[in-house]
Amino acid sequence: MQTIGELLVLLGTVAFAVTAVLAVVDRGIDLFGAIVLGIITAVGGGTIRDLILDVPVFWAIDTSYIWVALMASVFAFLARSVLARKHMNSLFLYIDALGAALFAVQGTVKVWDYGFGLPFAPVMLGVATAIGGGLIRDVLAGRRNLLMSRELYAVPITLGCVLLTLILSYLPEYRYYGSLGCFALIFGLRAGVIYWQLIVPDWFTTKAR
Amino acid sequence: MQTIGELLVLLGTVAFAVTAVLAVVDRGIDLFGAIVLGIITAVGGGTIRDLILDVPVFWAIDTSYIWVALMASVFAFLARSVLARKHMNSLFLYIDALGAALFAVQGTVKVWDYGFGLPFAPVMLGVATAIGGGLIRDVLAGRRNLLMSRELYAVPITLGCVLLTLILSYLPEYRYYGSLGCFALIFGLRAGVIYWQLIVPDWFTTKAR
Amino acid sequence: MQTIGELLVLLGTVAFAVTAVLAVVDRGIDLFGAIVLGIITAVGGGTIRDLILDVPVFWAIDTSYIWVALMASVFAFLARSVLARKHMNSLFLYIDALGAALFAVQGTVKVWDYGFGLPFAPVMLGVATAIGGGLIRDVLAGRRNLLMSRELYAVPITLGCVLLTLILSYLPEYRYYGSLGCFALIFGLRAGVIYWQLIVPDWFTTKAR
Repeated sequence: MQTIGELLVLLGTVAFAVTAVLAVVDRGIDLFGAIVLGIITAVGGGTIRDLILDVPVFWAIDTSYIWVALMASVFAFLARSVLARKHMNSLFLYIDALGAALFAVQGTVKVWDYGFGLPFAPVMLGVATAIGGGLIRDVLAGRRNLLMSRELYAVPITLGCVLLTLILSYLPEYRYYGSLGCFALIFGLRAGVIYWQLIVPDWFTTKAR
Repeated sequence: MQTIGELLVLLGTVAFAVTAVLAVVDRGIDLFGAIVLGIITAVGGGTIRDLILDVPVFWAIDTSYIWVALMASVFAFLARSVLARKHMNSLFLYIDALGAALFAVQGTVKVWDYGFGLPFAPVMLGVATAIGGGLIRDVLAGRRNLLMSRELYAVPITLGCVLLTLILSYLPEYRYYGSLGCFALIFGLRAGVIYWQLIVPDWFTTKAR
Repeated sequence: MQTIGELLVLLGTVAFAVTAVLAVVDRGIDLFGAIVLGIITAVGGGTIRDLILDVPVFWAIDTSYIWVALMASVFAFLARSVLARKHMNSLFLYIDALGAALFAVQGTVKVWDYGFGLPFAPVMLGVATAIGGGLIRDVLAGRRNLLMSRELYAVPITLGCVLLTLILSYLPEYRYYGSLGCFALIFGLRAGVIYWQLIVPDWFTTKAR
C-alpha cells in the first residue's frame, strides 16, 4: 500500500505542476518562471504544512518530488499548445482534482499522526497541503486566487479533511477505508463541480462592489 | 494576571477575525473564503513569529485561538450588513487597535523571553505579530496593504515595541508596568490616529507617480 | 577569508536594501514602509532558506545584518532623489547583481554543508536566498515580480547554483575556487544582461494574452 500511496502522491505532484504551468502560461512567462511556479505549486502546500508541523520538509527527504515536478513543468511548458486545447484542459482539471484529494488526505493523516494541534490542525494543514501551493502560485503570478472565487474548490477539500479527522478520532480502526472514502468524497465532489460547473450559492457569497 | 492576559489576546483574536472579514466582504467572497481569511488574519502574525523563533506555533498548543477565530469569522460574515454600518465599523477600528496593541506587546515579550536576536528581533517580531496576519490577508485578497498606505498603523506599533524592548533591557524590574504602558501607548496613539484621521506627514512620504 | 566573505555579504545586504527602497519609492511610500521593505528584501531570501533548512535564522545570530539593512534603507529613503538619477541607478543595478551573486553562492554552500536535500535543495535554496527577498518585496508592494518578467535575472543565478552544486559534489577539493568562479559567473552574466539589456529569447517565452 505504501508504494501505491507514494505513486499516487507523485501523480498528484505531476498534476499540480502541469496545471500550474497551464494556468500561468497565458500571462507571458519564460521557461524558468514556469519551472519555478510549477515546483512551488506542486510542493508549496506540503512545505507550509511541514514548516508549521516543525518536521523536515518532505521533498528534502525524498527529492523525487522535486525531480518529478521539474520534469512535469518542462513538459507542460513545451507541450503547452497541445495541453491547452479544450478537452485536454478539462482532463487536467480532473487530474488536478485527483491531486488535491490525494494531498488533502495525505496531509491530514500526517498531521494527525504527529498528534499536532488536535482537532483543528489536521483539517487546517490538510487543506493547506492541497491549496497552499496554488495560493502562492496565484500571488506570484498576480492572479485572482481561489479564496476570492466562487468556484467550489476548497469547500469539498475541507469537508473531506473534517470527515477524515472525525474518523481518525472516533473510528481509528477504519483509518484505511476512511482515508480511501474521504479521498473518493473529495475527488467525487470536485469532479461534480467541474462537470456541472457548480458555484457557491448566492446566499453564502457577498457581491463584489 | 495570566488569565486576564489570555482573555485579552482572545479578544484581540476576535477583533482581528471580525475586521478581516469586514475588510474583504465587499470584494465578493464566500463563507469559506471569509473563514480562511479571518483565521489567517487572526493567527498569521503569531505564526510567522513562532516559525522564525523556532518554537511550536501557539495555536497548535492552545487551539482555542482557532476556535475563537472561526466563530468570530462566521459571525462577522453572517452579521456583515449590521457590522458594516458606519458607527459599528468605527467601533471595530478601535477594537482592531486594541488587538494590535495586545499582539505587539505579547509578541515582543515572548521573543525577549527567548533571548532571541536581541535587540532587534523582539521589535521586528513584535511588529510582525501585530501586522503579519493583516499583510497576508491583503496579499491574498488583492488589497493594497498598510505598508503602501499613509495611515499611521505600523508606526505607533513599532514605537511601542521599541520602547518595551528598551524597558525589558534596561529596566527589567518594570516589566509588568512597562508592558501595560506600551500597550496603552500603542492603543492610545492608534485611537488618536483613528479619531483625528491622521496620516504620515508629507516629508516622510514619497508621492506615487 | 571569513572576514572578507562576511564583509561581502554585508555589502550585498546594503545593495539589496538600497535597491529595494529605490524600487518602491515611486509608488508612494513612507519612511516606515521603506524600512520594512528594505529589511525584508535584504534578509527575506536567507530567512526562507533557514526556515526550510530548519536552522536558526542568520540575522538572529548576527544582528549586524538587520542593523546594516536598517541604516541602508533610511539612507536610501533620504537620498532617493540623488540615488534615482540615471547613472546612479545603473550603478545600483550592478551592486544588486553583486549582492545576488554573493547571496546565491553563500546560500548554496550553506545548504550543501548541511547535506540537506541533495542534490536539489542547494540549488533551490541558493536561488531562494538570492531572489526570495525581492519576490516578497514585489508581492507586498503590488509590483510585477521577476518571475513574470523577461529580464534574465534568475537564470544566471540558477546556472551558477547548479554549477557550484556540481563542483561541491564531484570536485570538493575545488570548493574555494569553485565558489569564486560561480560568483564571477553569476555577476558576469548579470552585468552582461544589464549592460546589453538582454531578455529571454522568444522561443523560451509565452506571450501575454
